[in-house]
Amino acid sequence: MYRAGIDLGGTNIKAGIVDEQQHIIAEASVPTNVERPYQDIIRDMAELVKTLLKQKGIGETQLKSIGIGSPGTIDAVHGVVLYSNNFGWENVPLTEQLRQYFSCPIAVSNDANCAALGEVKAGAARHAKNAILLTLGTGVGGGIILDGKVFEGAHAGGAELGHTSLICGGEPCTCGRKGCVEAYVSATALIRDAKRAAQQYPESSLNAMCEGDLSHMNGKIPFDAAQDGDTAAEKVVNDYICYLGETITNFVNIFRPDIVLLSGGICNQGKKLTEPLETYIQDKCFGGSKAFIPKVACAVLGNKAGIIGAANLISGKER
Amino acid sequence: MYRAGIDLGGTNIKAGIVDEQQHIIAEASVPTNVERPYQDIIRDMAELVKTLLKQKGIGETQLKSIGIGSPGTIDAVHGVVLYSNNFGWENVPLTEQLRQYFSCPIAVSNDANCAALGEVKAGAARHAKNAILLTLGTGVGGGIILDGKVFEGAHAGGAELGHTSLICGGEPCTCGRKGCVEAYVSATALIRDAKRAAQQYPESSLNAMCEGDLSHMNGKIPFDAAQDGDTAAEKVVNDYICYLGETITNFVNIFRPDIVLLSGGICNQGKKLTEPLETYIQDKCFGGSKAFIPKVACAVLGNKAGIIGAANLISGKER
Repeated sequence: MYRAGIDLGGTNIKAGIVDEQQHIIAEASVPTNVERPYQDIIRDMAELVKTLLKQKGIGETQLKSIGIGSPGTIDAVHGVVLYSNNFGWENVPLTEQLRQYFSCPIAVSNDANCAALGEVKAGAARHAKNAILLTLGTGVGGGIILDGKVFEGAHAGGAELGHTSLICGGEPCTCGRKGCVEAYVSATALIRDAKRAAQQYPESSLNAMCEGDLSHMNGKIPFDAAQDGDTAAEKVVNDYICYLGETITNFVNIFRPDIVLLSGGICNQGKKLTEPLETYIQDKCFGGSKAFIPKVACAVLGNKAGIIGAANLISGKER
Repeated sequence: MYRAGIDLGGTNIKAGIVDEQQHIIAEASVPTNVERPYQDIIRDMAELVKTLLKQKGIGETQLKSIGIGSPGTIDAVHGVVLYSNNFGWENVPLTEQLRQYFSCPIAVSNDANCAALGEVKAGAARHAKNAILLTLGTGVGGGIILDGKVFEGAHAGGAELGHTSLICGGEPCTCGRKGCVEAYVSATALIRDAKRAAQQYPESSLNAMCEGDLSHMNGKIPFDAAQDGDTAAEKVVNDYICYLGETITNFVNIFRPDIVLLSGGICNQGKKLTEPLETYIQDKCFGGSKAFIPKVACAVLGNKAGIIGAANLISGKER
């Protein structure tokens, strides 16, 4: 039997057919063109899956389930995208629409939840049953896996780990509050802080590495400059690791998962990121050495996590 | 059938026999005398339960289970108190010791978890299956109920909602970090802030209400002074509600429970506390009106919550 996973992104719709060993045996994508009516986007999702099935000679009776990872606030019980800012969607009945094309069970969840489930099923957390994933990108998404299943809150709008306080009253967050985790540990926040440091310290190599144009700043530059011994960059990196360490400590104190995963471009830093974080949380987590301290690791599946996770939503949903 | 619940406190051991309707049909307490060997304390727990059973003419075969709510960091799987600062306990095998006296299943959980479960079984959240409880006392305890069962984290040391960031780097917390929820919304923190305001504004009625001796400050005085129109007290109360509103918003963004419960002396403020908090979180929770906004209410069972919750641990433990 096979499962289909769909990763609905702002740029592309990606779909894959996943086998029982959690391998993606076929994969394709089409542009999302978000400005279209949602019915057209959902029809394209269906066609993408049908094409992949045909390509591999798999009949629809061999398709056990379809899952979709979608941005936005999801009502997973009813399969509705309640709200997605990027898509301009409100109350889009995603699973109901897709059911016109398929007879197997269909589920939808937030994209960060799907990525977390994918890493637990086949990636960096595949020996774990309880994991927290933080996606460190433009924003910060959160995925919570408890007992091998996605936990998205009792009602719609849960698992928004990026929208919990780090420094209440601090940097403005996209959600309207001030001082959320997202406003300190997203790639956007790291870039903002690196730009500020570059402006404050004109002699910092942060400026040279941007060729004097701070719009070239990215999440790699402060790490590179710190590696070269630039003091301003070192402070940016140390502060960032401190923010991320406090964030992880918070979620460990709540969930005590087997493992905490990070994803996003920042993970290219590898152990330069995870080792100081592990040291940090050992020192800070409640109960210290008396309580369990999880590993901190980088996600390994990249974009495939979303597809594999989405494909496993049905089996991974019921508690 | 009956269940026994034991609330192990720093001052007293309280025990109760709970019937199938979640009524406490017999209840008693003895001093804890924490400085004794733990074996003696556990023997007293056993005697307390046996006395109550005898008193009601209930045979031990009619006792379905025993549960204990204990302070500290608990390994619920093995029934061990890993660490309790108040008791000076380390690795105390609570359930193993108590099993010498009883043949029914025995479980232990953190006292705040038990209080939350008690309120869900018989109190302010009795129509809910998913609830968060914050105990606002000397410290801040957290209880998480998911699908009617205690969630204490995948490993020992979870559900410590009081030890998550509110203003990272801010007020020192008992856990060694700075800026935890506990350092802003505990009764201790409210009293600290009220004292500071009294010192800063000598004309404030906060001083008169303490009869000029700030060691008389308590959690009620700032609310009373604010009610009388004292500006300094109003700021203390407004800040406190803001801290608590941000805290609740954080946990709603993670758990989206049916209801958020508060307990502790501060709850005597009733709707003066819960109404502004409900307004606050409606405005602040992620997804706004698109997502689910829970009720905020005060716990109603007082000390009985811990006994009823503990009594229900066995049935309420397995996912």
